[in-house]
Amino acid sequence: MRRTSFEGQACPIARSLERVGEWWSILILRDAFRGATRFEQFQKNLDIAPNTLTRRLNALVEAGLLERHRYCERPPRDEYRLTAAGRDFRPVMWSLLAWGNRHFAPEGASVLIVDSQTDEVADPVLVDRNTGVEMAPPRYRSVAGPAADAATRARFSQLEEVLQ
Amino acid sequence: MRRTSFEGQACPIARSLERVGEWWSILILRDAFRGATRFEQFQKNLDIAPNTLTRRLNALVEAGLLERHRYCERPPRDEYRLTAAGRDFRPVMWSLLAWGNRHFAPEGASVLIVDSQTDEVADPVLVDRNTGVEMAPPRYRSVAGPAADAATRARFSQLEEVLQ
Repeated sequence: MRRTSFEGQACPIARSLERVGEWWSILILRDAFRGATRFEQFQKNLDIAPNTLTRRLNALVEAGLLERHRYCERPPRDEYRLTAAGRDFRPVMWSLLAWGNRHFAPEGASVLIVDSQTDEVADPVLVDRNTGVEMAPPRYRSVAGPAADAATRARFSQLEEVLQ
Repeated sequence: MRRTSFEGQACPIARSLERVGEWWSILILRDAFRGATRFEQFQKNLDIAPNTLTRRLNALVEAGLLERHRYCERPPRDEYRLTAAGRDFRPVMWSLLAWGNRHFAPEGASVLIVDSQTDEVADPVLVDRNTGVEMAPPRYRSVAGPAADAATRARFSQLEEVLQ
């Protein structure tokens, strides 16, 4: 699968998609969060062609989200573990999970996140750590940051954030 | 770009990716949140081929994330507005933005989210609305839900959530 690269773009969303903007990558990370580490585990869960899986695992290692650990010398076998940057993707994954449950699960939830202290189903919400307030417009809005390039500044100066 | 469809999969992450699991779709939504509504605005911001943009806008309309509104009859011209389900993608987008800023912006942030009451930079964190606690293992973990199919249950029974 060939695409334009967004590497040169200053936008943090485009940069993130450069690393994981492909279905298989996100599903591989999903399974890594669930404890999958070995090629066979990913392959079985995902029902993915071996050469595609190899390519996506290599890309995730190159992007710094998974790292290889050799667990067997003869024959040589590696497992794949989440790096700190990879583990830090969990809030994105869980936000995606909550969005999917709200809008695309008419038959009910297949996967839930629970609070193991109470066994209650969690209700994920994005808040500002500084205020504890849910992050939504109009109070919260995106702005061009200190490292914004000319294209980013132009984009932000021409349009107004959607306020709902 | 051809892919396997994940429509049949019960996983809410796979279902979500079915709707937005492609770079352009997420970048189109990014610009829609920033107030872009017209074909020319998306095209200019994204530097995307017109036929690709048409295809992606149609897919987002079909997925129920954007809706068309005719703003000019002669010549016929439509604009694209976020639906409720589309607007509800914002926490995913902002989580992705925060992740990109933390890991892939060595020169500093190009885009930030600010609290307009204080002009402070926000620090997005995913919490459980029921408890106010940051959602992270070991306290929070994903489990098979009531509508899980056999494959999902098998996946959850074999592996243990990564606890960091």
